[in-house]
Amino acid sequence: MQFKIEKVTKADKRIVEEPIFYMEPDAYSGVRKVADKVREDVKRVVEFLPETTKKREKLGKYPVIYGTIGHSKILEDLHHSGKINLSVVEGKREVFLFQLVEEPYEGISCALVIAGSDKRGSIYGLFHLSECMGVSAFVDWSDVRPTHKDKVILTEKDNYISKEPSVKYRGLFINDEWPAFGNWAKIHFGGFNAKMYEHVFELILRLKGNYLWPAMWTACFSCDGPGLLNAELADEYGIVLGSSHHEPCIRNGEEYSQVRGKDSIYGDAWNFRTNRNGILRFWEDGLKRNGKFENIITLGMRGEQDSKILEEDATLEDNIELLKDVIREQNRLIRKNVCEDLSSTKRVFVLFSEVEAFFYGDEKTKGLIGDQELDGVTLMLGDDNFGNLRGVPTEQMKEHNGGYGLYYHFDFHGGACSYEWMNTIYLPKLWEQLSMAYDYGISDIWVVNVGDICFLEYPISYFFELAYDMEKWGSSKPNMTDYFTKQWIDRQFDSAFNKEDKKSIQEILNGYTRINHNRKPEVMKAFVYHPVNFDESENLLKEAGQIIDQVNELKTRCPKWALPAFYELIYFPAAASMNVQKMQIVAGRNEFYARQNRVEANVLAKEIKWCINEDKRLTKEYHHINDRKWEGMGLSEHIGFMHWNEEGNCYPLVIEIEPANKPRLIVAKSDCSEFTEGFNWTRKTLKIEDFLRPDVDEVRIDLACGSRESVEYEVKSDCSWIIPSNYCGCVDNKEVLRLKIDRSLLKGKELGTVLIQTKTSEAQLEIWAQNTDVLTMDNNTFLERDGYIAMEAAHYYKKHDIDGYCFTLIENYGRTLSAMKVLPPQHDFTNDSERPYLEYHFIADQEKEYTLDLYLAPSNTAYRDHKLTVGIQLNEEEIQMTNAVGEHFCSQDFGCMEWIRGVMENIHIHQSSVLCQCGLNRLRVYAVSPFMVLEKVVLYKKGTTIPTSYLGPRESFYKK
Amino acid sequence: MQFKIEKVTKADKRIVEEPIFYMEPDAYSGVRKVADKVREDVKRVVEFLPETTKKREKLGKYPVIYGTIGHSKILEDLHHSGKINLSVVEGKREVFLFQLVEEPYEGISCALVIAGSDKRGSIYGLFHLSECMGVSAFVDWSDVRPTHKDKVILTEKDNYISKEPSVKYRGLFINDEWPAFGNWAKIHFGGFNAKMYEHVFELILRLKGNYLWPAMWTACFSCDGPGLLNAELADEYGIVLGSSHHEPCIRNGEEYSQVRGKDSIYGDAWNFRTNRNGILRFWEDGLKRNGKFENIITLGMRGEQDSKILEEDATLEDNIELLKDVIREQNRLIRKNVCEDLSSTKRVFVLFSEVEAFFYGDEKTKGLIGDQELDGVTLMLGDDNFGNLRGVPTEQMKEHNGGYGLYYHFDFHGGACSYEWMNTIYLPKLWEQLSMAYDYGISDIWVVNVGDICFLEYPISYFFELAYDMEKWGSSKPNMTDYFTKQWIDRQFDSAFNKEDKKSIQEILNGYTRINHNRKPEVMKAFVYHPVNFDESENLLKEAGQIIDQVNELKTRCPKWALPAFYELIYFPAAASMNVQKMQIVAGRNEFYARQNRVEANVLAKEIKWCINEDKRLTKEYHHINDRKWEGMGLSEHIGFMHWNEEGNCYPLVIEIEPANKPRLIVAKSDCSEFTEGFNWTRKTLKIEDFLRPDVDEVRIDLACGSRESVEYEVKSDCSWIIPSNYCGCVDNKEVLRLKIDRSLLKGKELGTVLIQTKTSEAQLEIWAQNTDVLTMDNNTFLERDGYIAMEAAHYYKKHDIDGYCFTLIENYGRTLSAMKVLPPQHDFTNDSERPYLEYHFIADQEKEYTLDLYLAPSNTAYRDHKLTVGIQLNEEEIQMTNAVGEHFCSQDFGCMEWIRGVMENIHIHQSSVLCQCGLNRLRVYAVSPFMVLEKVVLYKKGTTIPTSYLGPRESFYKK
Repeated sequence: MQFKIEKVTKADKRIVEEPIFYMEPDAYSGVRKVADKVREDVKRVVEFLPETTKKREKLGKYPVIYGTIGHSKILEDLHHSGKINLSVVEGKREVFLFQLVEEPYEGISCALVIAGSDKRGSIYGLFHLSECMGVSAFVDWSDVRPTHKDKVILTEKDNYISKEPSVKYRGLFINDEWPAFGNWAKIHFGGFNAKMYEHVFELILRLKGNYLWPAMWTACFSCDGPGLLNAELADEYGIVLGSSHHEPCIRNGEEYSQVRGKDSIYGDAWNFRTNRNGILRFWEDGLKRNGKFENIITLGMRGEQDSKILEEDATLEDNIELLKDVIREQNRLIRKNVCEDLSSTKRVFVLFSEVEAFFYGDEKTKGLIGDQELDGVTLMLGDDNFGNLRGVPTEQMKEHNGGYGLYYHFDFHGGACSYEWMNTIYLPKLWEQLSMAYDYGISDIWVVNVGDICFLEYPISYFFELAYDMEKWGSSKPNMTDYFTKQWIDRQFDSAFNKEDKKSIQEILNGYTRINHNRKPEVMKAFVYHPVNFDESENLLKEAGQIIDQVNELKTRCPKWALPAFYELIYFPAAASMNVQKMQIVAGRNEFYARQNRVEANVLAKEIKWCINEDKRLTKEYHHINDRKWEGMGLSEHIGFMHWNEEGNCYPLVIEIEPANKPRLIVAKSDCSEFTEGFNWTRKTLKIEDFLRPDVDEVRIDLACGSRESVEYEVKSDCSWIIPSNYCGCVDNKEVLRLKIDRSLLKGKELGTVLIQTKTSEAQLEIWAQNTDVLTMDNNTFLERDGYIAMEAAHYYKKHDIDGYCFTLIENYGRTLSAMKVLPPQHDFTNDSERPYLEYHFIADQEKEYTLDLYLAPSNTAYRDHKLTVGIQLNEEEIQMTNAVGEHFCSQDFGCMEWIRGVMENIHIHQSSVLCQCGLNRLRVYAVSPFMVLEKVVLYKKGTTIPTSYLGPRESFYKK
Repeated sequence: MQFKIEKVTKADKRIVEEPIFYMEPDAYSGVRKVADKVREDVKRVVEFLPETTKKREKLGKYPVIYGTIGHSKILEDLHHSGKINLSVVEGKREVFLFQLVEEPYEGISCALVIAGSDKRGSIYGLFHLSECMGVSAFVDWSDVRPTHKDKVILTEKDNYISKEPSVKYRGLFINDEWPAFGNWAKIHFGGFNAKMYEHVFELILRLKGNYLWPAMWTACFSCDGPGLLNAELADEYGIVLGSSHHEPCIRNGEEYSQVRGKDSIYGDAWNFRTNRNGILRFWEDGLKRNGKFENIITLGMRGEQDSKILEEDATLEDNIELLKDVIREQNRLIRKNVCEDLSSTKRVFVLFSEVEAFFYGDEKTKGLIGDQELDGVTLMLGDDNFGNLRGVPTEQMKEHNGGYGLYYHFDFHGGACSYEWMNTIYLPKLWEQLSMAYDYGISDIWVVNVGDICFLEYPISYFFELAYDMEKWGSSKPNMTDYFTKQWIDRQFDSAFNKEDKKSIQEILNGYTRINHNRKPEVMKAFVYHPVNFDESENLLKEAGQIIDQVNELKTRCPKWALPAFYELIYFPAAASMNVQKMQIVAGRNEFYARQNRVEANVLAKEIKWCINEDKRLTKEYHHINDRKWEGMGLSEHIGFMHWNEEGNCYPLVIEIEPANKPRLIVAKSDCSEFTEGFNWTRKTLKIEDFLRPDVDEVRIDLACGSRESVEYEVKSDCSWIIPSNYCGCVDNKEVLRLKIDRSLLKGKELGTVLIQTKTSEAQLEIWAQNTDVLTMDNNTFLERDGYIAMEAAHYYKKHDIDGYCFTLIENYGRTLSAMKVLPPQHDFTNDSERPYLEYHFIADQEKEYTLDLYLAPSNTAYRDHKLTVGIQLNEEEIQMTNAVGEHFCSQDFGCMEWIRGVMENIHIHQSSVLCQCGLNRLRVYAVSPFMVLEKVVLYKKGTTIPTSYLGPRESFYKK
């Protein structure tokens, strides 16, 4: 049995195009419109547009028959005739049957039958056909062109019954839409109207989403269609409309400012106390207007522009009482104007900012929690605007019967810092947070703030994928993000690139998102990464540079027809954001080397300028490609934020030096801040201890010119085990001298000297080396060197799991290597007698107190108990129970530096101390509170410091 | 009676040139040589070279007869004939009679008789004639050309009997002579030989000096002549030879390295223990060689290269014993080889660095003090290398019979910082220190380290002037430096410039030396002066800029014949050093404004580059002028020292910014660090309280462009008493908006608002103003405003003097205005019941503890008691006796930050606290220890700070 999509030239030269789409009068108009989109998809693939017919007899040999149960006679007919069995989908939510039916009627060879359990089930079923043809969900949004085929053939293997989505409402929030999305919409559609939303709705549906919070900075969804067109179109397509957390009763915040006034029936104050009737009238008219559509109605109230509803001096009780009053009235209005039965009206109450406090109350004041007015209302929890959940339902809260929702951010406008320009979302982190939310029962609504949508297509895809199918992607299936990405790339660039290139795209996507996640471009600055210490800027420069090279290379190889999609989905996000990262790193090195008077600084100054121009050039190019399709979309400021927003942002400084008048050679270990010019009076010997690590056989020495004249140098050494890469040369900018050692010549701990001589100077390097007997060491045992022990979490010596709760490796998670987290995540071990732990082994230099830095993901606490407890145990000592967050830690509090540092730096370093013994030590890290994700463990002697860096010291040597 | 110097064409067309110099065979050859120099001077003035004759009958009508008592028959003859009276000079030290004698012999109308009491008396007398003709002491050294005259006529009014010089030995030390002096000597003379020293000796003699420490970095005075020529020439001229503090027995340190060796008779170790005989032999041969000349023989010993003589672990006693041994042996060798009678051999022992400790010993160990081997030896005290005396003889030390000498620095190579390039010597400070030294009995030897001599001609003149005549210039005659300078300028530029121009030169000399003294060019950096606070960099920029303008203006007006001298003495020192100061200030502002993203930074970046090039251009020009006379002399590095010496020095960074993409106007009070861009979300209101001062009627507001586009602005104010200088404009770089107020419209303390609006921003200025009733205030009563009270020392309310010890104003002293010091200086009031005091009145805002900062000259302590006690009394409280130096203060200790800050910043700020009452307060500052010089008094509420600055806050308002 085969269903064919094909254009055939018959022997009689008649051209037959199959399939023909059957259009029932009963079908939802939205479903019919989607069928038209799928027909367009067919055209994209096989280059003809299938016809439609209302007459069953004209369906040809391979028709597509689609419909919605209860709205389709033909489906009923086929069911009754036994050709299909609708009972497998009937009564289900958003499910479809996708089935080939042989000869359903006379003259038909094979029909493709798509039967939706409901409107969205039908739509998803139709788009399933597009998917089967290799059409991307971004076919419309990003102009992803499917591979041209002569024909598409489906067989019984393609028969499919879809599942109910894991999360009921899966949506996105267009937000912070100026200047990018706003200008784009204005230029191309004249505003936030139905012409524009048509594309957004299509995108959501193709991604199997069903929900939207529309743009609301300057827009009113229900007025801008023009008129109700937006809302009507959404309803037609089965897009459920919500509104942001502070926009109750289906009215946008912006609307009030348009209708308020001295003589307005709505009064002139967004104040429920002084203008109760005006506000109620405003809400009621909203419900009257939009109540007929499918909505999730926001309850509650906030002040204007995200402010508090009452003055600063109002008590908690005042606020709670007012809010109760508000919700009671809102429920009353809903019953009156939308549906008498509240339980069949989806309502949501968002626990955001100060509203959270009103929900929970305090010891003295009962909050809204458990209030009967919230009966059946979905409680919306949030992240901290930076992708970290702010809390999960407590045991008590689980009893709430309205379910829980999640408001998550891929984009944010606010403190600690806005990020509205580029994709900074990193899939391993996203998986960790979203799968955990789901495991905690947050599965009623997921809505993600996607800013301008653009550049976020990749994580948006993943978000919808997870929300749709947690069985496939959830916490029981860790480390599937690479698989997802590979699929996603295949989907967008099926035949545009070969396998190698697609691998390269995967590296690009992983690479740039991880880098942007480690530090968002807006708050990337010259000195975020240390210019030299631990080579961290050098490494990042290489990574960013490689991504830029790869993406440029691919651009030259990309077929012209695939360029628009490649540019939008891959090229611009990667090239532009890596250019910003590079610009800032180069700026840091420029200033750092300028202060050493290196001539190199002048070379770097030119590079910064190049990067600044490149940034502008890329934006311009982006605005011009694809017939200016994206004009406006690249307008977000994104460099050098000095405040939480773009106001006063600065490009990096460009610093030039004036070379010294007399010959000068600046000598430094390349990954070290110290330097010397080797002059007679102010000489400083550089001590190099790298070779005390068993795994280091080479160090790099910068020989940098600091003078107008180039400098000739000679390298001399007093011992045979040091092998310089060259013995003389002449430097006018910088050369890197490589010192290798021959370990076979070492006897014990040795000191060698390398002199770097010029006519006027002599820099002295004091080089220590030693062979360590690693044969006797256990695997994964670390050695203290350079004054510290740094261990990646994944390199534990052993681990201990309990009752199905396992410390699990999350690959590529976090800032450096990976992370360890207990999965499934939803257990609090605080009161347990046994707990999972990770055990690390290391050899310390001395018996001494050591500072212990635990590098944790910047998690908030799971509950309002403010506990992120970790258990630490060194050797046979007692377990120290330590709270990894400070007493005053408070997420989303712009005065809480601990939280701000966490989200800005994407790490939370918890410091404690342990008494080490000389020699082998055993450190156990116990899981206690939920939300703990361990990335790295660093120890160093109390009272000492390790060189400044962003990512922490490089990992210590360990036996592999 | 007239003595004429004149060329006359007689009626018979015979040309007669007068005078003719009488050359006696008996005359010292050095004196004869000087007479020849004076004849050259005559030629310079009247354009003919006087003849000389050995025949009395050929002397013509107006002869010059000179000689030295005891070495001149003609003087004896004239004495016996009653024409002159030699008894007025006979037996005196370095004195001369300068007298017109009418018809001493037949045919002579009028003879000028110059009779010296000794060789140098005669020489000074001869050069006195040059002076009378208007010839500068720098006629040879700096090519100062005297004014051409047709004739010079002397009358009886010019008769003159000179005085004995105040200080017996007055000399200079050519030191730190590489790269400048050394290269210059090599290029022009082939080394440090007699050809070169001829000029140095002439300079010393013309300045009425008599003493020299020759260059010794790489030179051996007694070998380089070649051979003994240098020493012989010195002796011929009456130049007494000394050597630096660590070069005993008339041998340069460098000599030893030339003669040492394995087989050398002098051994191969500069070690009195291991190579006693070799060292003694070395010294003895020196004494044998040079003992016949006039020397001041250095005693003692130091290690090589200014190191300690014994190892670090040697005890104090070891060192003292060794030094005693050394001196005993040296005395023995002097008796044996120079003169049996030690008392007639001038010897000196320099209390320098660690030698000082050996001299004084400690509680347990008797030092060299009082040791009989030092009997008759001049003890040389020093400054701290930065012009501050390190101590004066105690009462006990006054009994020492060898007298005291002073080793002072105009140039230094060492820590805290070297200053070898330019004149940084400021006359008021020099006067204060030198006159005090003299008052304390330090009058046997003065030697000043003059580095390369060049550029230091002006303070060198002053130094010799003071040393020669303390009656005229000493501490009983304060504030004469302006008078000296005026005279000095007249002497160098008699007819080259008019009176106005000479006034301008005086401003230039005062100005540039004060600025260089406030911060030496080598350690002037971008952020020494605050870029904006209190306008201090703005003011300095103006001052330096004005000096540069003035000196350039003068250069264009300088007659060609005077240019060489003008360039060397005035132009280059002023232009080059002010350019360096400017370069660094501009660099500070460049970086400061760059970090605000002002487009102005890019203009400043260009200015820095201009200054860097100008520095190079000036040096090149200097090396080329006057037939390359000074080639090599400008080679000293002088910019951005990072260490104590030039090693690793850096030109200032040149920073460029990339203007913002969107219009941006940066608004700031011009003299204040705070700024705002006036954007909606991150707006910061600028609070301006300047108008609370009764003497402020205007503030300046920077309107600085921060964007690619220029920005249009409007100024709006809500009150009538604020008068902006303009109401709108368009800024592409910077405009300064002046806000004036109309005080007649103020009622009480008022708050006005000024808004500076652009299309996208609104900067808000909150302006406070108040009229204060000053009529009821006493004169010199200060008002607290802007959070502080700052009072210049000179603006005391009253002062109290005791028994001839008066708090005396030293005009222009110190960093800002002037200073107050008790004169005469040599009294310690510690144990007195009554003390001089200065009384200050001020009105404080609150009853509160205030921090009291006394800005003192960076004096060391007078004695080894480590006391620089000041008495402080507020209102009726007890007098607080407070030591202005810390417990561990130690001058010349490179580990003592207190001393280092003092000499680097040229101020010593002593902090204490007082409890002020609200309203009028009376503060008395009592003189206690010697050396205390008060420049400024600043008070501010405890726990508060005043904006960072180098010079301290601007003076508060006071009733005048």
